[in-house]
Amino acid sequence: MKRVYHVLLVAVFALAFVRCSGPAETNDPLPSWNEGEARQAITEFVKDVTTAGGKSFVPAAERIAVFDNDGTLWAEHPMYFQLLFALDRVKALAHAHPEWKQKQPFKAVLEGDVKTALAGGKHALLELVMATHSGLTKEEFAQIVKDWLATSKHPKTGRPYTEMVYQPMLELLAYLRANGFKTYITSGGGIEFMRPWAEKVYGIPPEQVIGSSIKTKFEMRDGMPVLVRLPEINFIDDKAGKPVAINQHIGRRPIAAFGNSDGDLQMLQWTAAGAGRRFCLYVHHTDAEREWAYDRESHIGRLDKGLDEAHEKGWTVVDMKNDWKVVFAFEKEMTAK
Amino acid sequence: MKRVYHVLLVAVFALAFVRCSGPAETNDPLPSWNEGEARQAITEFVKDVTTAGGKSFVPAAERIAVFDNDGTLWAEHPMYFQLLFALDRVKALAHAHPEWKQKQPFKAVLEGDVKTALAGGKHALLELVMATHSGLTKEEFAQIVKDWLATSKHPKTGRPYTEMVYQPMLELLAYLRANGFKTYITSGGGIEFMRPWAEKVYGIPPEQVIGSSIKTKFEMRDGMPVLVRLPEINFIDDKAGKPVAINQHIGRRPIAAFGNSDGDLQMLQWTAAGAGRRFCLYVHHTDAEREWAYDRESHIGRLDKGLDEAHEKGWTVVDMKNDWKVVFAFEKEMTAK
Repeated sequence: MKRVYHVLLVAVFALAFVRCSGPAETNDPLPSWNEGEARQAITEFVKDVTTAGGKSFVPAAERIAVFDNDGTLWAEHPMYFQLLFALDRVKALAHAHPEWKQKQPFKAVLEGDVKTALAGGKHALLELVMATHSGLTKEEFAQIVKDWLATSKHPKTGRPYTEMVYQPMLELLAYLRANGFKTYITSGGGIEFMRPWAEKVYGIPPEQVIGSSIKTKFEMRDGMPVLVRLPEINFIDDKAGKPVAINQHIGRRPIAAFGNSDGDLQMLQWTAAGAGRRFCLYVHHTDAEREWAYDRESHIGRLDKGLDEAHEKGWTVVDMKNDWKVVFAFEKEMTAK
Repeated sequence: MKRVYHVLLVAVFALAFVRCSGPAETNDPLPSWNEGEARQAITEFVKDVTTAGGKSFVPAAERIAVFDNDGTLWAEHPMYFQLLFALDRVKALAHAHPEWKQKQPFKAVLEGDVKTALAGGKHALLELVMATHSGLTKEEFAQIVKDWLATSKHPKTGRPYTEMVYQPMLELLAYLRANGFKTYITSGGGIEFMRPWAEKVYGIPPEQVIGSSIKTKFEMRDGMPVLVRLPEINFIDDKAGKPVAINQHIGRRPIAAFGNSDGDLQMLQWTAAGAGRRFCLYVHHTDAEREWAYDRESHIGRLDKGLDEAHEKGWTVVDMKNDWKVVFAFEKEMTAK
């Protein structure tokens, strides 16, 4: 009898051992990251701030990580996806605005001439956003965003925009959360444009989404209170605005910040300047085949000053081409076909 | 041998039973609440939204509860504590502002004539706040708030302001969190005035504090990035501003809202108007002995329209005198002495 127990015990331990020491891929929290400096810097940082008793330990409540969205979590070419949304909205709303046929930048959008439409620069862009993002309640706008994402496809890949997210960054978000981090988006994009899908796609709930916004107004409609979106800028969450918005929403300084452009530089500077162990990372778009290659000269997601400062200060720079095994999850499907 | 095991087993179960069915007070999550309508409404609501499979069940992620601060979580008489802070700051800063001796409302404050100082209404109030709350970095201001709270006493009770918190509301906050709620402050008071102590006093972390704010600016000081507080209003989180700020910060509609004045009415209306089970509660200041009694005619924390609407819509109204066994935790100490 004793012998039987002994054999059983050994069998159980053996099974447990096999389970724990199975193929490395199974347990790797960052399977889409190649071995290299970037990956190593991430895992070392996480180990440092989570090791109880270690000199760099950070309590879980203070493990705040902030992520830019466009170009950091999802793609931003051929142009910001929210701008593509605005252009589609102009077309959808045109029947109610006959005057747009004669009025720029709407006229050009309706004629399919995006270049002319955007030639008006920031002013034209604001006009497009205001005309297409305001006048609705919060809930109506959220529904329109969801409907658009459910039916629209990226012009180059033909994939839904919510599949144009970087697989290695999804793994990084999950890895940080598994280590007690609270992950936030802090994007130049619209806060209410991101909230309807950020939880499903990134695992980031609405209260952890920070972005640019237009003003809203509380009012009664037929005795029911609603929040109506106004055609007036509230806050631009870009450059020096990012640390301001992070402080307004979170009230504590992040210990880790992730971006891809000069628009994220102040956020990284502010994060880096806190006491204790800090981590700053730039995603550098170096892969013209699987994604796009751009940096210092790009109109979208320009990374120039930020790249210099990253090198100077020893921040981590991800070389997408060499550091990432996979950029988009759908690449695997394509290979499998 | 078998008998010994049996006896041991019975003993263990007996001990477990004693532990679970001990004195009722031990297990009551709301020991400072008398039996009555208010208490019952709270516990029924919590049971309804947390009962899996029930028709009013709400997933934990959506269990958002918002609390006003002044008059709801801590006292607000003889005047808002933040105003007392501002008056003390005027005195502390007077040496650097010789011009204040001739300039209202500062002159009156320095002469100890608060009534004259506040006779200038909202404008005078704003001048006092701007002069005393701006020009500092975020961290400097937080330290000043902490120092003030550590050394100042409430003029009536002689207690630190952080002891002027309502014991039944502390229990309510903890009870909601134990049931999966995320508790937020949404106050007309300053967001950066509350953040330095809200976690310690209420268990509410900085990212769950919403309040009024002045603008801040990101800038470099000797190569170090700082956020400097500017003498310019950013947002007043009161009345119709509360739902706007809640949406901006949280991005979802609360399912429970707690206030004490007409300044909270729109927050309660917006909360009540959502789909599914909702809970709105007004703290009614009815206890002139243990606290203060005021409502429709009060300049501070006026509750007039809100009281009518609460009765009309069947919201819960807490009668402080009759619903609360204890108002402040220090009352118990005083009785014990």
